Amino acid sequence: MRIRKKAWTEKEISQSEALIKPETLKTAPLSEIFGNNNPIYLEIGCGKGGFIIQNALKYPEINFIGLERSMKVLAIALRKHREIAEPPKNLIFLNMDAGALLDTFTEKSFGRIYINFCDPWPGRLKWAKRRLTHRGFLQTYRKLLNDGTVCFRTDDVPLFEFSVTEFTEDGWQLLNVSRDLHTTNMPEIMTEYEQKFSSQGKPINGLEARPNAGQINPV
Amino acid sequence: MRIRKKAWTEKEISQSEALIKPETLKTAPLSEIFGNNNPIYLEIGCGKGGFIIQNALKYPEINFIGLERSMKVLAIALRKHREIAEPPKNLIFLNMDAGALLDTFTEKSFGRIYINFCDPWPGRLKWAKRRLTHRGFLQTYRKLLNDGTVCFRTDDVPLFEFSVTEFTEDGWQLLNVSRDLHTTNMPEIMTEYEQKFSSQGKPINGLEARPNAGQINPV
Repeated sequence: MRIRKKAWTEKEISQSEALIKPETLKTAPLSEIFGNNNPIYLEIGCGKGGFIIQNALKYPEINFIGLERSMKVLAIALRKHREIAEPPKNLIFLNMDAGALLDTFTEKSFGRIYINFCDPWPGRLKWAKRRLTHRGFLQTYRKLLNDGTVCFRTDDVPLFEFSVTEFTEDGWQLLNVSRDLHTTNMPEIMTEYEQKFSSQGKPINGLEARPNAGQINPV
Repeated sequence: MRIRKKAWTEKEISQSEALIKPETLKTAPLSEIFGNNNPIYLEIGCGKGGFIIQNALKYPEINFIGLERSMKVLAIALRKHREIAEPPKNLIFLNMDAGALLDTFTEKSFGRIYINFCDPWPGRLKWAKRRLTHRGFLQTYRKLLNDGTVCFRTDDVPLFEFSVTEFTEDGWQLLNVSRDLHTTNMPEIMTEYEQKFSSQGKPINGLEARPNAGQINPV
């Protein structure tokens, strides 16, 4: 079973035209890969790809990149993409870790960064820096964004509160902060996790964050 | 011992000129009690009174009110105040619960509200509403403030993250948010808890919050 799964994953990888090797990006700029200069939205941890594929289909004038560090999980996204009658050309996938973002992409590459239902790394303080909303990552996103925002959703309350604090202390302007997103601002496109948690009646926490707080009334 | 302690508390209460009964405030306005129209700063949970007494001595042009629901603890503050050679007249104490704020004070009474090292009510969600930075309390503070801020300090990280999220979702503008206040903005006057925690090397979390976010750059 394990071998069959591995073989399936490898077949999917070899067949996919949407999977790009991170090394490729070191020589070819993103505008060349997509064949246009449209804005690029990045999802960090795209999982099985439901969210980013639906976005790519709905917004053809935007380019999308799905990042996923688990090849097994990414293979499911690749199959999902390949099985569409006309797979959207405005979407590529990368099998890589968020820790390598600055080695892979040039600054100001993205108009938006999505972080959906990432690993909360609960509990112990020494794990906090692995959370995708730890200040270390926020400083990376600040460099990668070109006048855009980070869009963050999670079902995990401690992770959400940690994240709001990290963004705030790091000087980001927060918009649409909600502990129950689906009652205030129902998203058009949901992730697989979001559909599952939401159907269980679990509130979804969400926010949008802009790198610079801008001109706020002086104290 | 218990009886002696009780007797001591009662003696302190009867001797104190600074202790005001909440009922008194229903007939006499604060300006009459203080004998002037100076701004009034409120500390919710003043404990043994170190912080508010030092503030009252340092800032005679401000009036201060120390609120404490434990009479035993408040008696220590009363003694501390009484034993000063010239006890500051710009300070009064009230033995009451924060839940009764709107029954006791008129709207726009305060220029500042201090919440220092309040009970974190850790864990269970149903206790969240007892935390002094729960949105229920924030709506009270919003009414009581007259163009001022809430100043909040705690050593408790989950309470701090909860609080930043509550303030943000409720639309407050956050200033000077710090997970380690003593490295960024060392306070001139510390509470008893703050001195203790700080001397143990424990970081102090702090923020200032203004009720209305004001005009932020449009998205």
